Amino acid sequence: MSLRIVIVGGVAGGASAAARARRLSEAASITIFEKGPHVSFANCGIPYVLGGVIADKSKLLLQTPESMKARYNLDVRTNTEVTRIDRQHKRVHYHSAPASPASLVGVDADRSLPYDKLILALGAEAVRPPMEGADAPHVYTLQTIPDLQRVNAAMDTGEVHHAVIVGGGFIGLEAAENIRLRGVHTTIVEMTPQVFAPVDEDIAAEVHAELRKQGVELRLSTRVQRIIPPKGDDGGGVELAGGERLPADIVLMAVGVRPRTGLAHDAGLRIGSSGGVVVNGFMQTNDPDIYAVGDMIESKHTVSHSPVNIALAGPANRQGRLAADHIFGKGAAYRGTIGTSVCQVFDLTVGNTGMTTRELSRLKRSFRWVTVHPPHHAGYYPGGKSMTLKLIFDPDDGRILGAQAVGRAGIDKRIDVLSTAIQARMTVDDLETLELAYAPPYGAAKDPINMAGFVAGDLMRGEVDIVHSTELKGALETQPELQLVDVRNPGEFTAGHLQGATNIPLNGLRERMEELPKDRPLVVYCQVGFRGYLAARILQQNGYTVQNLDGGIYPRRQRLLLS
Amino acid sequence: MSLRIVIVGGVAGGASAAARARRLSEAASITIFEKGPHVSFANCGIPYVLGGVIADKSKLLLQTPESMKARYNLDVRTNTEVTRIDRQHKRVHYHSAPASPASLVGVDADRSLPYDKLILALGAEAVRPPMEGADAPHVYTLQTIPDLQRVNAAMDTGEVHHAVIVGGGFIGLEAAENIRLRGVHTTIVEMTPQVFAPVDEDIAAEVHAELRKQGVELRLSTRVQRIIPPKGDDGGGVELAGGERLPADIVLMAVGVRPRTGLAHDAGLRIGSSGGVVVNGFMQTNDPDIYAVGDMIESKHTVSHSPVNIALAGPANRQGRLAADHIFGKGAAYRGTIGTSVCQVFDLTVGNTGMTTRELSRLKRSFRWVTVHPPHHAGYYPGGKSMTLKLIFDPDDGRILGAQAVGRAGIDKRIDVLSTAIQARMTVDDLETLELAYAPPYGAAKDPINMAGFVAGDLMRGEVDIVHSTELKGALETQPELQLVDVRNPGEFTAGHLQGATNIPLNGLRERMEELPKDRPLVVYCQVGFRGYLAARILQQNGYTVQNLDGGIYPRRQRLLLS
Repeated sequence: MSLRIVIVGGVAGGASAAARARRLSEAASITIFEKGPHVSFANCGIPYVLGGVIADKSKLLLQTPESMKARYNLDVRTNTEVTRIDRQHKRVHYHSAPASPASLVGVDADRSLPYDKLILALGAEAVRPPMEGADAPHVYTLQTIPDLQRVNAAMDTGEVHHAVIVGGGFIGLEAAENIRLRGVHTTIVEMTPQVFAPVDEDIAAEVHAELRKQGVELRLSTRVQRIIPPKGDDGGGVELAGGERLPADIVLMAVGVRPRTGLAHDAGLRIGSSGGVVVNGFMQTNDPDIYAVGDMIESKHTVSHSPVNIALAGPANRQGRLAADHIFGKGAAYRGTIGTSVCQVFDLTVGNTGMTTRELSRLKRSFRWVTVHPPHHAGYYPGGKSMTLKLIFDPDDGRILGAQAVGRAGIDKRIDVLSTAIQARMTVDDLETLELAYAPPYGAAKDPINMAGFVAGDLMRGEVDIVHSTELKGALETQPELQLVDVRNPGEFTAGHLQGATNIPLNGLRERMEELPKDRPLVVYCQVGFRGYLAARILQQNGYTVQNLDGGIYPRRQRLLLS
Repeated sequence: MSLRIVIVGGVAGGASAAARARRLSEAASITIFEKGPHVSFANCGIPYVLGGVIADKSKLLLQTPESMKARYNLDVRTNTEVTRIDRQHKRVHYHSAPASPASLVGVDADRSLPYDKLILALGAEAVRPPMEGADAPHVYTLQTIPDLQRVNAAMDTGEVHHAVIVGGGFIGLEAAENIRLRGVHTTIVEMTPQVFAPVDEDIAAEVHAELRKQGVELRLSTRVQRIIPPKGDDGGGVELAGGERLPADIVLMAVGVRPRTGLAHDAGLRIGSSGGVVVNGFMQTNDPDIYAVGDMIESKHTVSHSPVNIALAGPANRQGRLAADHIFGKGAAYRGTIGTSVCQVFDLTVGNTGMTTRELSRLKRSFRWVTVHPPHHAGYYPGGKSMTLKLIFDPDDGRILGAQAVGRAGIDKRIDVLSTAIQARMTVDDLETLELAYAPPYGAAKDPINMAGFVAGDLMRGEVDIVHSTELKGALETQPELQLVDVRNPGEFTAGHLQGATNIPLNGLRERMEELPKDRPLVVYCQVGFRGYLAARILQQNGYTVQNLDGGIYPRRQRLLLS
């Protein structure tokens, strides 16, 4: 008899597992149960349908049950929920939604199906924090196509003038952009001090500036206390923790997702500390005939080796493929998830790979980091946009631990290269010598990645010492003897500088350095860190104790520090 | 006494060496001799000034002798040629051009300077093949700023209606685009069957199509026999090998560059088989006090370990830095050059990294390759442009040997990631699992790089067999029993298909496969190779002998093969 594979969940991980299983075996019987009305849809595209960027939501439907039957000979049962796994008899119990569209095999109220191998790919569900008014009619989530249809219907009434988005993660940011594109006054309320948790606060600060520039209001470090439903002429709103009320014709809950583990838990499958189902390298749960993949599982972080629950489409697809491979005796073990991601925020792109300094601090790992602001391609070629690239590394062996970047061009490229570098266990040295493609429209003979490598390498070799802007304020308070030296040109200095700084332009430094006190520690700075570095080298070789301000007083830092 | 460093050549490698040396030592005396009028200029930008893309040529001057003095305390002597190296007495002999602008230390007719360490960074010179008329006044090269000024002066007369560019490499292609942008009728005459030698002919074919679409005429596999100078009313031209004459108000010689090794050769320094100066890993020539860097040297290819002479700005900069490091007892050995490059050709980008199949064949290395044509970002997000990505790998261990890509977006990103992967000695397996950044505007949950990895992995694991379009024609001739199966939809089939092909759409294949002869080998194909792969898996599992046409009959291949 042929192998019976049952897959619960038909989006990224489940659909990948099914397609791969069929490619490996024409003989297997493969059934997919999907609770929702759609399989294999592009949920990552949902916010863009809202803004009209993707004109037709049908584009999100990558497959239908019919096309999956025709192409992959899969038995796809949409609107059908698996309610129980009977591990002893190796059966799943399911029932179809009463008003479901016809599935390929007809619908039933309560039936069961046997499996030889079961793959769980239930994904994650949007969290709806318990609060007063959370079930009001103008409160939405934005995770599925029916969600999208509901929000779109509300927007299409023309009555939506104010939107409040609760949460500044991926969905919150993408939704904010797309709702704002429709002319709606939009506010993001975020509990933590920053949006986009995959990056550190200094990088998020540039996202904050872009959001404000584009007319999105931000309420950071702020909780929503209750949601006020619309009532007669009185429009709806949200009440913030301080008591302030924001008008809101729609409220979008985007506070994050939670692995959908109920079915697995009820079946006695192990749930890990991250909240996801525990699997081994081959995606097997503690029941070797039951696999779990995608947003519902706990995987190992590639860099920290800690258990993590990361909801990303790429890893979900890979895990689905791997489960199918293992069922047919193929494939290697899963290598872990690194959490590489990128997000468009209006004209800005922000991305990350590996670990943040926040996570490293929490895990008590030692790390250092450097920041550079090179243009995304050769400065002499028109259209170059400066970026912020933050490189985090192990101070002992130089291994790259993480990277973050934000800017208007070339961000996804640098994140992908650095993600590859981390997965290859490269070090700072490797980045210094990395050969990348250069022609004026695309890069520079010294790519931003090489530049970050140089700065990190200089630091590791002790050629220069740096101080971060976040440390400088404290240092100035505790060490009043610190002397700030601005090595930019007088015009730049006059336009704004750090309080108490002396201006000695780099190009005259060798002649004028005697004006600086040799018995006081110096902090030199410039606009982006390069002239500061050159100045630090000159001063250090002349017997001064000197640190360079990492990344200079690039605009966002200027706001923090300027007198 | 302080160390005396003399550098000959002040552009990429020389300027990098000088700046690094100064950062490492405030005490050293550092002198740069530069034969031309400019130091540290961006020669890669020159073609773009011609087309007005870079509006002001002064943008190309990254440094001046004065700025290098002020910032790096360098003694820069432009318009000064080093004529001889006296290794015994460790002196360089030089003379200044008679009409040179004032240099920082005055000009002299014939003098010498002692060195402790000498760095040669003379670059490469544009080849002017000896032919009748090569010295005619309307014949130009485009390597330096004075070259640019001459060509620009000719163009500015308004008398240039026809341009002939001899050679279809980097400079030839970039010049063709920029001259064409000024409305001039432009023809590229190229000796070999293709432009842009860093890629294989199948990839170059897409560049040929773009050039023709943009109005650039191509004469491939064609030699220029002589150049005809303008004479009275008779405009200039070129005569091709067959006798045909093309009108040419300007002729641009862009047949390539040759390492400038005269000075090194005369000093008894070793020249390698590639034509460049032989250096060790620390950039030392056979005289340990003389270093050589940049386009003039022979380096080791990262993948083949063969000696190569590769003229690229990135490696030149790194080598310059490394020579300075070694002088001061720092730095690791040079790791080799991989030849990663990218070129804009109107709306198209073409790039490569590692080795081509042409080079691998020449070196008798075993290799396989696969071709994919995914969109540069998620297909459901607007604006996706399909690319051609060719991945070349070692069939024994799966190690990536090279990659080439061409398309309208996302090319430089994939080349950079694959360049990083090759430098990390990654394999096809690594690409299958590589985690890259995905959001709809930037990529896909399965990135083009993952897709190429999957196809290559399937091939390595024997899950599918492929045939390349270049092999198919011959196979059809020698094996008349070969049965072609087109698995696209009837509409696609009717619009054009391979001669003799049977049409069985993939989605009905399981039902109709009995129409296919089991005793004949099959070649299945579709548009880009994916449906063909699925069909091949179905047929193979049902006992057929089947190959999938690599990359399908994507347009450029369609032209080669269609009935």
